[in-house]
Amino acid sequence: MNRRLQEVKNSLGKTFDAILVSSIPNIIYLTNFNGFSDKEREAYLLLTKNAHYVFTDGRYAEVASKIKGFKLVRTSPNRNFGQALKGIVGKEKIKKLAIDERDIKVSETLQIKKVVKTCPDKNLIEKLRATKDTTEIKNIQAACRLGDQVFEYILSEIKLGITEKEIANKIEIFILQKGTQISFKPVVAFAANSSSPHHVAGNTKLKKNNIVLLDFGVKLNNYCSDMTRVVFFKKATDKQKKIYQTVLEAQLKAVEFIKLSIINHRPINASEVDKIAREYIKSQDFPSIPHSLGHGIGLDVHEKPSLSPKSKGELKQGMVFSIEPGIYFPDFGGIRIEDLFLLTQKGPQKMTSANNKLIEL
Amino acid sequence: MNRRLQEVKNSLGKTFDAILVSSIPNIIYLTNFNGFSDKEREAYLLLTKNAHYVFTDGRYAEVASKIKGFKLVRTSPNRNFGQALKGIVGKEKIKKLAIDERDIKVSETLQIKKVVKTCPDKNLIEKLRATKDTTEIKNIQAACRLGDQVFEYILSEIKLGITEKEIANKIEIFILQKGTQISFKPVVAFAANSSSPHHVAGNTKLKKNNIVLLDFGVKLNNYCSDMTRVVFFKKATDKQKKIYQTVLEAQLKAVEFIKLSIINHRPINASEVDKIAREYIKSQDFPSIPHSLGHGIGLDVHEKPSLSPKSKGELKQGMVFSIEPGIYFPDFGGIRIEDLFLLTQKGPQKMTSANNKLIEL
Repeated sequence: MNRRLQEVKNSLGKTFDAILVSSIPNIIYLTNFNGFSDKEREAYLLLTKNAHYVFTDGRYAEVASKIKGFKLVRTSPNRNFGQALKGIVGKEKIKKLAIDERDIKVSETLQIKKVVKTCPDKNLIEKLRATKDTTEIKNIQAACRLGDQVFEYILSEIKLGITEKEIANKIEIFILQKGTQISFKPVVAFAANSSSPHHVAGNTKLKKNNIVLLDFGVKLNNYCSDMTRVVFFKKATDKQKKIYQTVLEAQLKAVEFIKLSIINHRPINASEVDKIAREYIKSQDFPSIPHSLGHGIGLDVHEKPSLSPKSKGELKQGMVFSIEPGIYFPDFGGIRIEDLFLLTQKGPQKMTSANNKLIEL
Repeated sequence: MNRRLQEVKNSLGKTFDAILVSSIPNIIYLTNFNGFSDKEREAYLLLTKNAHYVFTDGRYAEVASKIKGFKLVRTSPNRNFGQALKGIVGKEKIKKLAIDERDIKVSETLQIKKVVKTCPDKNLIEKLRATKDTTEIKNIQAACRLGDQVFEYILSEIKLGITEKEIANKIEIFILQKGTQISFKPVVAFAANSSSPHHVAGNTKLKKNNIVLLDFGVKLNNYCSDMTRVVFFKKATDKQKKIYQTVLEAQLKAVEFIKLSIINHRPINASEVDKIAREYIKSQDFPSIPHSLGHGIGLDVHEKPSLSPKSKGELKQGMVFSIEPGIYFPDFGGIRIEDLFLLTQKGPQKMTSANNKLIEL
């Protein structure tokens, strides 16, 4: 049995004796099978003391039957998941089933609760996923390298009159042509549009002296990259330059704080890292960051650990996360710089290598 | 106020006095705003007797404040959705809140139920969405036309040795180059792979005499198309020809049944339409369809009405749905033909126009 399955199964027997795995990243993490859609519920895994099951319908029965170490339980219009689960609950005498409350929908619990008592799974798989193994790191690193190439390529495509959507499409096409896919819809925002951290690329045309914010990622072998850069078309004003340097400095200060903590063998509270960057920005008389400082990344673009004022966890070696401070003004625009870091025994190792100096095109 | 909002609000006051709208298609349907991600929960709408609210965080506050007819309620790390909802529930004296149980997650209900009693929303917005207005039909028709072009283009790219993934990427790139996007990851399956109705395009290379199954869709102005074709590279066997004709005939029989029902002013039970195609396939000694015969389409690729053995609803004029019979054998492959139809007063009007004759490349 693989190490991941073993670790999950080690949690069985105390407060629950079986775990239902429903989210696509968790299913991929435990089976290496990435054939189920993340749009609709098409499968569940069930881990019990005695066996592992994959529940799916006729569309997937053939491929799912080949997932190593899992027994196929077939669902159908005449035998929904709840009914299929009932059979296994009886056979395996399951008393309490742990479910992923952040993923399972109300309508699903109505089925499940008819059959067995449930309790929260305490995000135990997400917690395992926060620390990456060498293969995972290799995949994220490869995705980051392709992201760096995207940035270099797209700079050459930024021209007067081009629309945000055209740039976003060019990014996506470039990544597809490399034989892989985006990890999320590219955010491309010109001028004041960049003040919305998650602006949807639209038909705004590029004008002279616009801010150009680019936030995009690659998904390679199921693993994601994520990067944000802001460039200036043509000239940055003094105010823009000051903001850019403040954002960059905020990121560097957060990195330095983590590095010193590692060197001094101090635990690193994620919330303290957030605070370092946030307080620095405020100290320069700019508004606080209207989002978290960073997020873990892997099979999901956003996963554990979170680096926010509310974070309770610590950053540990083997974790991969973004550090992405930003300063935004509604009528002016926003500047954000985002890179990914792997936490090693020497400190945060930068995984994205794209130029982060102020660029005037 | 727009007609859609009015219709939803007409349902207030009997079993519930407010509705929480959470799914992205429902949010787009009621606001025309498509800026929220469908990956993570970033916003909710709340409709009460007195007002309409949009709940979102700092990343979207600026754009959300511009949604016509909705008041912005801002959430933050220090004021989660439950807390923000509490304020409105008190102010508006909401006694029972209808929620979308197929969309809302367990963790979200834990927040909501602290604040107000809930009940199912009875899919009332999904039911409205099933019948399309003229703008929606125009959008779906435009998406279908582009889908027809994709099919014509991709036929010229199918060559010995090309992989499934390469074809899938070419489909996606073609659609992006037209300035729009896919409605779902293209399914491209060669030979026996086509026996999995939702096969994920992989590195299988095209060989002589392979079945090539193509299932893809376009999303244009938020509206989806969906189409499946099977072509033969190079020659179809007699068995393949027989299956192809049977599948096509099953689709035609379903269409004919709907048309006759319309002409004779008979109600059209969706389950009966499914039965016509399903029974015909079985009557030819082939295995029953391992999925539904069809599904509604619009803002979502799969929405109401469903055409399956379990369907309870009727097909009505103005509905748009797929009819997609298929015959599958694990070691042989699968043949499915899928087209979209708009139900008019004259019968089902085909929206996809791609060649459906047996093609040997």
